[in-house]
Amino acid sequence: MSPRVLAALSRPTIGHLDPEFQALMEDIKAALQRLMGAPDHACIPLPAPGTAGMEAAIMNLLEPGDRAVIAVNGAFGGRMADMAGRAGAEVVTVEDEWGKPVDPAKVEEALKAAPTKVLAFVHAETSTGARSDAAALCKLARQYGALSIVDTVTSLGGIPVDAAAWDADAIYSGTQKCLSAPPGLSPFALSKRAQAAIAARKEKPRNWLCDFGLLMSYWGGEGGRTYHHTAPINALYGLHESLVLLFEEGQQAAYVRHARMHEALAAGLEAAGLKLLVDAEHRLPQLNAVLVPDGIDEAAVRTHVLKAWDLEIGAGLGPLKGKVWRIGLMGASATPWHVRLCLTALCEALAAQGFKVNGAEVLKAADAKLA
Amino acid sequence: MSPRVLAALSRPTIGHLDPEFQALMEDIKAALQRLMGAPDHACIPLPAPGTAGMEAAIMNLLEPGDRAVIAVNGAFGGRMADMAGRAGAEVVTVEDEWGKPVDPAKVEEALKAAPTKVLAFVHAETSTGARSDAAALCKLARQYGALSIVDTVTSLGGIPVDAAAWDADAIYSGTQKCLSAPPGLSPFALSKRAQAAIAARKEKPRNWLCDFGLLMSYWGGEGGRTYHHTAPINALYGLHESLVLLFEEGQQAAYVRHARMHEALAAGLEAAGLKLLVDAEHRLPQLNAVLVPDGIDEAAVRTHVLKAWDLEIGAGLGPLKGKVWRIGLMGASATPWHVRLCLTALCEALAAQGFKVNGAEVLKAADAKLA
Repeated sequence: MSPRVLAALSRPTIGHLDPEFQALMEDIKAALQRLMGAPDHACIPLPAPGTAGMEAAIMNLLEPGDRAVIAVNGAFGGRMADMAGRAGAEVVTVEDEWGKPVDPAKVEEALKAAPTKVLAFVHAETSTGARSDAAALCKLARQYGALSIVDTVTSLGGIPVDAAAWDADAIYSGTQKCLSAPPGLSPFALSKRAQAAIAARKEKPRNWLCDFGLLMSYWGGEGGRTYHHTAPINALYGLHESLVLLFEEGQQAAYVRHARMHEALAAGLEAAGLKLLVDAEHRLPQLNAVLVPDGIDEAAVRTHVLKAWDLEIGAGLGPLKGKVWRIGLMGASATPWHVRLCLTALCEALAAQGFKVNGAEVLKAADAKLA
Repeated sequence: MSPRVLAALSRPTIGHLDPEFQALMEDIKAALQRLMGAPDHACIPLPAPGTAGMEAAIMNLLEPGDRAVIAVNGAFGGRMADMAGRAGAEVVTVEDEWGKPVDPAKVEEALKAAPTKVLAFVHAETSTGARSDAAALCKLARQYGALSIVDTVTSLGGIPVDAAAWDADAIYSGTQKCLSAPPGLSPFALSKRAQAAIAARKEKPRNWLCDFGLLMSYWGGEGGRTYHHTAPINALYGLHESLVLLFEEGQQAAYVRHARMHEALAAGLEAAGLKLLVDAEHRLPQLNAVLVPDGIDEAAVRTHVLKAWDLEIGAGLGPLKGKVWRIGLMGASATPWHVRLCLTALCEALAAQGFKVNGAEVLKAADAKLA
């Protein structure tokens, strides 16, 4: 987190219907529209972690009997399929290997097979570090008359997210990744087309907290604000400050910074003799899944790095459990200092297990990309 | 908010799977058990505002075809009925006038009529300031083989909540009322009996984020923690600090303080010629619904008090819209200073509309109760 975001969290709590707070709500909505490239979408922060955005998208756009095509190439696609089943939808999953992007050809095949209400996929798979082609997948959805749901939890703020250019229908994210605000809120965008689909529903969404119509009666702001939930005031102060920080730097500048830090980290990892899980062309700069070398106790490496360097490296999930480490370079942690710290800590932990690695060479390789 | 709670929000964010954070999670669970009088319940804070607790209780305990009896004596009973319908339940509402407590005789009649899975009611109606008899209502639920759901959003920390003594099955609350932490979390307790009922469900709960089994795979802590949602770390720092503050004061001392501040406020209001909506025996000390005198522009009073005194008074909801003001004396705002501030501001705003009131007499009446 940026110290400015942490400081913002401590501002005095005011009422969720206070006019001063309502001005802040409007600021946040406008900032999210800009960040998501969504000038015509309704953009609001949901009052719960990123998963709430996923649930809001699924539960508002699907009702019993609807067909949903869900691309699964990691942990979060699987989660969407689970939720769509709870919404009463007929769920068709399109599977790709963990670490690979979603294959548009397979998705098209699934869309062709029957009329489909929703195509859902993950833009940036946090469990693998793979980036899928959001523009191509949203285009397929349009072509076959489906609404698109795009998970941008890990992408937003780190790589471009452009709802208008993609013509995406529902986009959601989290605050704790590249926005560097604490976890607990889920930025959410919905197209006019998706809003019309909700208005035409036969039954109410199965989730009250994430019911878009009720949410907008509070967040919409036209014709006054009707109480729905009590907005998490202080968390929203933090999100607001993180958006101010991002626009101070500039969105494009932030994307370039993430890309550069990734290149430096990747160069250092390569110099250490380590390999990344994902092919270069589909890699996310902000989430680096590193293959655990043979004979290395991966949990011991994470524990060492956490205890000796106060640095947390993520474990592998699902089929990648024990096989990869996941290194985040997100928002305020995408800096040269963090890249060097991480490489230093990782080399030390590997060396402690007898892995041959020359820390000086590793840092030199990373520094060459930072020059 | 207490300054200590606000300061806690700014502590450095650590990972939601970090061992240090997991120790904090265990502390919070134990503190909630103590606060809710629920040593044998599973107690966790849900990562969203109080409504999430309501949704978790309804969606986990009800499935399609179940009969639910829901007592409605204000805005929040109505919300529970809406949610129960979304869960697919057969919903029977038992209505009482807004401002009155739930009538156990009517509830018994509804329970008698057919086998019932759940009885749900609001302990402390935030929309009216009425307190219902939780012990009697939970006892009725047991008698007729139903599980009880008790909304304690406004009661927890302000008046006794005793899950074990009531033999209540699901209890939920919010952090922004008498706990004086920012909005955004929902303390939640579930009995062993309710957990067994969830284990016996025929289909999955319709809400993924509030799915109790999934929540406990992260919060349960036995056999390790499986990632479900990303816990709102900084908000949980705030909740933890608010619980520390409450136990420093002592639960009983906090209840006595709320009762005393209410008596002082009520004496001042009476001296001002104002009346409370709720009969004395069913009043909540922490939520005082004041009847708007004839000829007074109630919105203008609230605006005056907010602009001139930085003090927010709540408006009436539903059938009470325009008819009452709602004055909270909760947690850190249940102090003699707040009582005097509120009475002073209210008298000034009323006088500005030509209402005859002697501010000095009003404060004297309040002070007599504070001596």
